[in-house]
Amino acid sequence: MEAAAIYHRPDSEFAYLYQPGDFRVRLRTKRDDVKEVQCFYMDPYDAADSYQTISMSKIADTETFDYWEASLDVAHKRVQYDFKVVGQDGVAVLYGDRGVFPFAPQLIASAGNPFRQPYFHEIDRFKEPDWVRHTVWYQIFPERFANGDVNNDPKGIKPWNSELTPGRTDYYGGDLQGIIDHLDYLQELGINGLYLCPIFKAYSNHKYDTIDYLEVDPDFGDKEVFQKLVVEAHRRGMKVMLDAVFNHMGDRSVQWQDVVVNEQKSKFADWFHINKFPVAFKETDDFEKANELTYDTFAYTPHMPKLNTANPEVRDYLVNVATYWINEFDIDAWRLDVANEVDHRFWRHFADACHAAKKDFYILGEVWHSSQPWLMGDQFSAVMNYAFTETVVNGFVKKTLTPQRMVDGLNYQRMLYQRQVNEVMLNTLDSHDTARLLTVCDDNKDLLRQTVAFTFLQEGEPCIYYGSEVGMDGGNDPDCRKPMNWNEATQDHQLFAFYQDLIKLRLANADLLTQGDLEWTIVDDQRGLIQVTRTGEEKQVIGTFNLGDESQDVSSLKLDENQQLSQSFVGQVLGQQGYVIQVKPRG
Amino acid sequence: MEAAAIYHRPDSEFAYLYQPGDFRVRLRTKRDDVKEVQCFYMDPYDAADSYQTISMSKIADTETFDYWEASLDVAHKRVQYDFKVVGQDGVAVLYGDRGVFPFAPQLIASAGNPFRQPYFHEIDRFKEPDWVRHTVWYQIFPERFANGDVNNDPKGIKPWNSELTPGRTDYYGGDLQGIIDHLDYLQELGINGLYLCPIFKAYSNHKYDTIDYLEVDPDFGDKEVFQKLVVEAHRRGMKVMLDAVFNHMGDRSVQWQDVVVNEQKSKFADWFHINKFPVAFKETDDFEKANELTYDTFAYTPHMPKLNTANPEVRDYLVNVATYWINEFDIDAWRLDVANEVDHRFWRHFADACHAAKKDFYILGEVWHSSQPWLMGDQFSAVMNYAFTETVVNGFVKKTLTPQRMVDGLNYQRMLYQRQVNEVMLNTLDSHDTARLLTVCDDNKDLLRQTVAFTFLQEGEPCIYYGSEVGMDGGNDPDCRKPMNWNEATQDHQLFAFYQDLIKLRLANADLLTQGDLEWTIVDDQRGLIQVTRTGEEKQVIGTFNLGDESQDVSSLKLDENQQLSQSFVGQVLGQQGYVIQVKPRG
Repeated sequence: MEAAAIYHRPDSEFAYLYQPGDFRVRLRTKRDDVKEVQCFYMDPYDAADSYQTISMSKIADTETFDYWEASLDVAHKRVQYDFKVVGQDGVAVLYGDRGVFPFAPQLIASAGNPFRQPYFHEIDRFKEPDWVRHTVWYQIFPERFANGDVNNDPKGIKPWNSELTPGRTDYYGGDLQGIIDHLDYLQELGINGLYLCPIFKAYSNHKYDTIDYLEVDPDFGDKEVFQKLVVEAHRRGMKVMLDAVFNHMGDRSVQWQDVVVNEQKSKFADWFHINKFPVAFKETDDFEKANELTYDTFAYTPHMPKLNTANPEVRDYLVNVATYWINEFDIDAWRLDVANEVDHRFWRHFADACHAAKKDFYILGEVWHSSQPWLMGDQFSAVMNYAFTETVVNGFVKKTLTPQRMVDGLNYQRMLYQRQVNEVMLNTLDSHDTARLLTVCDDNKDLLRQTVAFTFLQEGEPCIYYGSEVGMDGGNDPDCRKPMNWNEATQDHQLFAFYQDLIKLRLANADLLTQGDLEWTIVDDQRGLIQVTRTGEEKQVIGTFNLGDESQDVSSLKLDENQQLSQSFVGQVLGQQGYVIQVKPRG
Repeated sequence: MEAAAIYHRPDSEFAYLYQPGDFRVRLRTKRDDVKEVQCFYMDPYDAADSYQTISMSKIADTETFDYWEASLDVAHKRVQYDFKVVGQDGVAVLYGDRGVFPFAPQLIASAGNPFRQPYFHEIDRFKEPDWVRHTVWYQIFPERFANGDVNNDPKGIKPWNSELTPGRTDYYGGDLQGIIDHLDYLQELGINGLYLCPIFKAYSNHKYDTIDYLEVDPDFGDKEVFQKLVVEAHRRGMKVMLDAVFNHMGDRSVQWQDVVVNEQKSKFADWFHINKFPVAFKETDDFEKANELTYDTFAYTPHMPKLNTANPEVRDYLVNVATYWINEFDIDAWRLDVANEVDHRFWRHFADACHAAKKDFYILGEVWHSSQPWLMGDQFSAVMNYAFTETVVNGFVKKTLTPQRMVDGLNYQRMLYQRQVNEVMLNTLDSHDTARLLTVCDDNKDLLRQTVAFTFLQEGEPCIYYGSEVGMDGGNDPDCRKPMNWNEATQDHQLFAFYQDLIKLRLANADLLTQGDLEWTIVDDQRGLIQVTRTGEEKQVIGTFNLGDESQDVSSLKLDENQQLSQSFVGQVLGQQGYVIQVKPRG
């Protein structure tokens, strides 16, 4: 057995309160190396011989690791625990707070050996807002969704054309009224969470360079129309998530302009990270990349000076912004742009203020890499799950991962987080920052459907990027930001119906699909046939997917041909890009 | 190579800012399994081919692991990085945020692979107070140190006798004036940090059952005398650390008594963790252990009801207590009793308030197990390093660990924390909660001296438990709480001189001993001969210790016989319990 591969970490995704009183411990071992794991646990103030023993279950594996889990049920909200790990070779070790030792029963409760969860503090527990688990998101880039009010159009807008690639600085006139006008459309689609890219006063078309966080951008409307949007959305059972850009400001803001003019003497001089006055930079051919910047920015963009969120004035200003839109407009969630580059202390203040303003508020960070430091219960509810996106696309679309390796990658990511975090992740397959999935799929709609169907069976909540439901395509930014296709003649109605069906299935089985067990079956890795089985208290949802290049006889799987949700499935043969989703009573 | 053993974790003791701009990365691999580790790093916003490469150094090893470290020097306070790990078998892998892959250069900067430190936030950096690195602590149990004022003696005190074991409820009349009276004595000894067990109004002799956090216990004196104590200590260059018991209160407190009487209607009903009213318990023979408690307590002690620190009223009350003693009396540090059982959110509030009240304030948690969750820069400065105590005692005294295994254990503990945490740990060998070291050593003073000398060469600060310097002994509590021996006829003056010398050496080399490199040489594990070499910028301190049962010829080590600090070292022979400490210019 490989003792050096055994891993646990107290007070982390390896040891956490899942529900009040339901304490979960995980252990990681080398793949296929360990026969059995037992967890010994007891009240730290009880006699040494009072420990209980529980067998741990293998809950996931990857190419490299096996993951084991148990739920510890204790009397007094406190526990100490250690592990007996028995290798396939019969070797047994005790693993605890001091490391790994040859197993001996007297070590189990001996001082210093056990790990400790000193007390189960509900205030420190990661609590996800329950409504998120019952949500299917829809992301809107407001400038390109719909032009509902021609009176607020910027000058020189281009004709609404969902075919042509927009220029980086083009405007089309999309606005908030346009969103309100299509809430019925979205309701027909079935989504119940609106995720809007920034709507505050800013210079660019994407509005990530905020000028004033307390104003709606005049190109998009005003506060009255935004109020109406929230009310109308809520009336339809839809939640509203806004996008907050707190890492940096736009350089056209009053604050930054004051620094430009007054230099050190500006009352905003400490609002930013300025290394040398006067603030300056050298332009390059790329307007988003400057050289010799004398101040910190987002990337190398001179127009996005980085905010000094450690300054209490800045902190209070931004936290006030956050609660203003909650208190005054009743929004339900913040999506946080470039969230990883802002300090933890700021996010803790921010999260406390948001939760105080609204119970069950959802906070979604934009973090592309592993995100445990933000997901311990004191900062974010979840992150945009781009690691999921990448792995699924590599498995289903690009085929750079075999099904087994794709599953390994998904499990690796899932095991980075507590269960309740995975349950509220935002699983998007494309966004305003990536190429659209249909284009990544080389316009193969069967492949798109198969990939989307798979995503809807995972723990986190799916997010549909506007227009995907009617077959919009687009490469990387700015091509992925084309105006929405409202032309019924060219909209793909079949695709729309596919999304409708999938959303219905997701919402009808939301608890099961977020909280139920998840089991993978690699039926045939070579031929690309896999199953994912989600198991709830009463039902099972089983998805079968053919990722291979050929049709496959799947009669051994005994799939019901009368399933509503399937593709390329006839006579027990599952074609290329075929899938079957079965919902059935728990076996 | 064992890929499953390779470990790194962003934003942890494996990836942290040591000093502003000095970002440290660590990697853990299986012991003796890896030939070479390189770290590739770059600005995440630069072109993929712009990465730099640095070789990582092995900084520690244990029985199971090797630990590698590098310092990354970057231009823009942000970095992405991954690792090339080359096994002894020649196999090379790339290890990053998505796991381990066969090494290929194009993977180094490919999207998703690198770990990220998104921005170097000074506000999130763990900052230790510099003065702590120049401190030798002295712990006082006030009821037993000195009776300086007979007017405040409790009724029925026992005669001051440093030989007899105290009863659990005995009083001797020790007080704050007694401490003031002996500050010159302590100055002569050389210590410069006073750590006082609780001094607030409480019921018991140990005062861990606080009745009023805002009053000095009348048995000990009053606020005026405490003020004088702090002033007199500061005048002598000594810092003062008080002991805060915030996990629980004494059951004689106004707050608890109100709950006893008024039950649910008490305005303090939510100050505690009450599971059922009325509050009740069943006594046992042991007055510290009750059955059928209807409320949460420290351990099973009915007299110590646990405080609900999640209640903002309680939080504000206790934080106010913390800052009151800083603001009004200028104390320098808090030691926190049962710190691990209080919620993280409370400690963050507490730490922020303390640091706002006094720059360079030191916060020491009582946590006996691994403590990373409290030592990330937002809560404690350090913990009482009982894991160190246990390992050193097992190696030097009980001999249950060979020297090599002892070093393994010490390294394992050191690698749990960031460098700057290890530099301010409190390394105590005994305390009011353990048997005295001399008794653990079976009254062998040579062994005591050897063990203490070793401890003084380690990174964290040594703490002397009152009376150790004059040869006091004592078993577990209450025997370890005997009145201080002030009888010059029975005090061990030779031992006192030993402590004086050692303290002088420590303080004269404080920067080197806290921040310098630490290297172990197991000269002969069987015979028990080891060296620890501490290397600073200009000097080295080398300790050589014979842990074996026999005298040993150490001429091969070329030790200077004219060293001031040595024991049993004559003619290049190091006797049992022998040691030599050399201070010399860096070689």
